[in-house]
Amino acid sequence: MSAPTRLLAICGSLRKASYNRSALHAIAELAAPDYDVEVRLLHDIPMYDHDFVDEHGDPEAVQRYKAAIAAADGIIIATPEYSHSISGVLKNALDWLHGKPSVLARKPVAILSVSSSVLGGSRAQYDLRKVLQPSEAYVLGMPEMMIGGARRKFDERGVLTDEAARTELAAFIAAFGDWMRLVRQPAAV
Amino acid sequence: MSAPTRLLAICGSLRKASYNRSALHAIAELAAPDYDVEVRLLHDIPMYDHDFVDEHGDPEAVQRYKAAIAAADGIIIATPEYSHSISGVLKNALDWLHGKPSVLARKPVAILSVSSSVLGGSRAQYDLRKVLQPSEAYVLGMPEMMIGGARRKFDERGVLTDEAARTELAAFIAAFGDWMRLVRQPAAV
Repeated sequence: MSAPTRLLAICGSLRKASYNRSALHAIAELAAPDYDVEVRLLHDIPMYDHDFVDEHGDPEAVQRYKAAIAAADGIIIATPEYSHSISGVLKNALDWLHGKPSVLARKPVAILSVSSSVLGGSRAQYDLRKVLQPSEAYVLGMPEMMIGGARRKFDERGVLTDEAARTELAAFIAAFGDWMRLVRQPAAV
Repeated sequence: MSAPTRLLAICGSLRKASYNRSALHAIAELAAPDYDVEVRLLHDIPMYDHDFVDEHGDPEAVQRYKAAIAAADGIIIATPEYSHSISGVLKNALDWLHGKPSVLARKPVAILSVSSSVLGGSRAQYDLRKVLQPSEAYVLGMPEMMIGGARRKFDERGVLTDEAARTELAAFIAAFGDWMRLVRQPAAV
């Protein structure tokens, strides 16, 4: 029996009752036991400050965060939509990963968004996709995963109770599994 | 003689030697004495945390930042380009301004970007424009102001020495002045 695939699931909202965070916990539940999903919050990531890096290198929290990304077999990123784009909190956390190569280079990544609006954060996903592009991450294209109308789909403890959304999330995890296997294969001759 | 128009010039980079910061200082120099330009850095703006706001309201630094925006006749925002978009630092500072109405609503805003690349941060400007849209700010459309190849255009003290860029910046300030007069006029019957 092989070890479970390790996924790091980054949450772009700091809110305790964040639907994005709840969706990542739903993924962790649905993906077990094949995948070991660690939900990573971003409270400890400081503002990106080039001067600090020049003088001291990466802060410790950023070192741990990069090491966790490097050690993961795949990354899942969930973002809220603020002002038609990803959160500043998430963008800042991604700004720390620039570099040639980025720690995200050739890393399989899946993205999702959850929102109480009917749009489900769909606009933020385009920016997230664009921002990830220069990192050379292998970002899953389809299916697009967004959960709109979140207020009706999670209960008051943050459990995803909506059956259609659970089914969609399970298919998303399966598609990401296929994607991880595909992009890690040695190139065919 | 009327009082000078007060402009708040927000810098999206924390770096001391930021070209964006230097460009804002060049604007302050070129715009005097008609405009009184205050360059506002973002080191004191914390990560947007909805839970904190629910419990305590806006942090003091954010209160001061919002008050400065409210008191200004116009806002200038300079952004670096990180991963094809605006900095997380700037996006986070804008996330604090959401609300109905936003403190930016009906406020004249001009945007610019400066970069050492030949593209001059042009891609980040589209995201900045999009992110500002739901705020209902009155964002200057043209001319687009970007300074590329910044390394050759600023001296080692951060003074903008390139004559063509200085001329372009002066025209940008003049256009923003026209825009401020236009959008503050009562609507014609």
